Amino acid sequence: MKVLVIGANGQIGSQLVTKLHDGGEHDVRAMVRKEEQKKAFEDKGVEAVLADLEGSVDEIAEAMKGCDAAVFAAGSGGSTGPDKTLLIDLDGAGKSVEAAEKAGVDRFLMVSAIQAHNRKNWSEKIRHYFAAKHYADRMLMNSSLNYTIVRPGGLENEPGTGKVSAGENLDRANIPREDVASVLAAAISNENTYRKGFDLVSGEHSIEDALNQLS
Amino acid sequence: MKVLVIGANGQIGSQLVTKLHDGGEHDVRAMVRKEEQKKAFEDKGVEAVLADLEGSVDEIAEAMKGCDAAVFAAGSGGSTGPDKTLLIDLDGAGKSVEAAEKAGVDRFLMVSAIQAHNRKNWSEKIRHYFAAKHYADRMLMNSSLNYTIVRPGGLENEPGTGKVSAGENLDRANIPREDVASVLAAAISNENTYRKGFDLVSGEHSIEDALNQLS
Repeated sequence: MKVLVIGANGQIGSQLVTKLHDGGEHDVRAMVRKEEQKKAFEDKGVEAVLADLEGSVDEIAEAMKGCDAAVFAAGSGGSTGPDKTLLIDLDGAGKSVEAAEKAGVDRFLMVSAIQAHNRKNWSEKIRHYFAAKHYADRMLMNSSLNYTIVRPGGLENEPGTGKVSAGENLDRANIPREDVASVLAAAISNENTYRKGFDLVSGEHSIEDALNQLS
Repeated sequence: MKVLVIGANGQIGSQLVTKLHDGGEHDVRAMVRKEEQKKAFEDKGVEAVLADLEGSVDEIAEAMKGCDAAVFAAGSGGSTGPDKTLLIDLDGAGKSVEAAEKAGVDRFLMVSAIQAHNRKNWSEKIRHYFAAKHYADRMLMNSSLNYTIVRPGGLENEPGTGKVSAGENLDRANIPREDVASVLAAAISNENTYRKGFDLVSGEHSIEDALNQLS
């Protein structure tokens, strides 16, 4: 499959692009916001495209053309305010879902947050962030797309271990961003992840086993 | 019908409660967050109930029990930050929709904002607010409820004129909050507003005519 990575310059997105580019199973296209980011990917031999999540659905749809799958790995991050949470994490995701429908990109993977589906377990300090992720996920589930919603726990920068735990409802725990990227790469064409959402933390299972046992 | 007004202490909500209480066509229950607000309504002979939009769906569903319709007229207002926009205007609305489904309150009216359905016409300065309203409206449209989404233009405190313009797409203009309250009251049992959303500004038509000509 040809896979568009949205938020390719982010911490999970950039690792996912590398894994897909090196892995050989899929082709990858990196979607970024700035010309210098695009050039940096192209210098490494990675196809890249410019589009702004604060732009129009048409602009994002154009960037997706010819892809078979899209992964939303973008986020406004911790250095901007909750206004950007609404415009990027919620509306950027919602527009990407609409763009995928428009461009005929049927497969869509969303990077969400652990327990985003379960209001009573939202982190008190960033409840507004969980609200944005919650509704982005619901818009995707209400769409016509073949979705997978990956809800990782607390993100770490340690190297990945390749050992994870995945399930409908998991206790809050951490996981290296590299393992999240590996799970996304493995989930793209794993049919047992189609039309499902799951929490994801570090654990005892290989990624393949963890995805195959999802119910 | 028995109508729950959510955000009954707000500027539109309080005028709607008064109109419904005085009008005689419907019964009204005012949903408020604080005990003193509840008492103030009860002192005027208006049934009132306590529930917090930052609380659980169950708490809101409990407050709705026995009602036939609900009007979401709540908003975090301009004095709090965009984090509250996410928690009240978006998630408070989303939870109210879920609560209505749970409590069997089939009719649901939403106070939205002009052109909330049309990203290219969102006010640049408060795009994040429009994003919250946009997704709240979409959650309602994706629900099982019989909805009406009223999208007023710039809200004024002048007395109402009873003359409005309503339509799928209107140019930005103002409207007194009192006229918005009158339109909500009139729309509750007007079948021509069922499963529709419309922009609303001051205009040339009686409220009845404006609602009856909606296509």
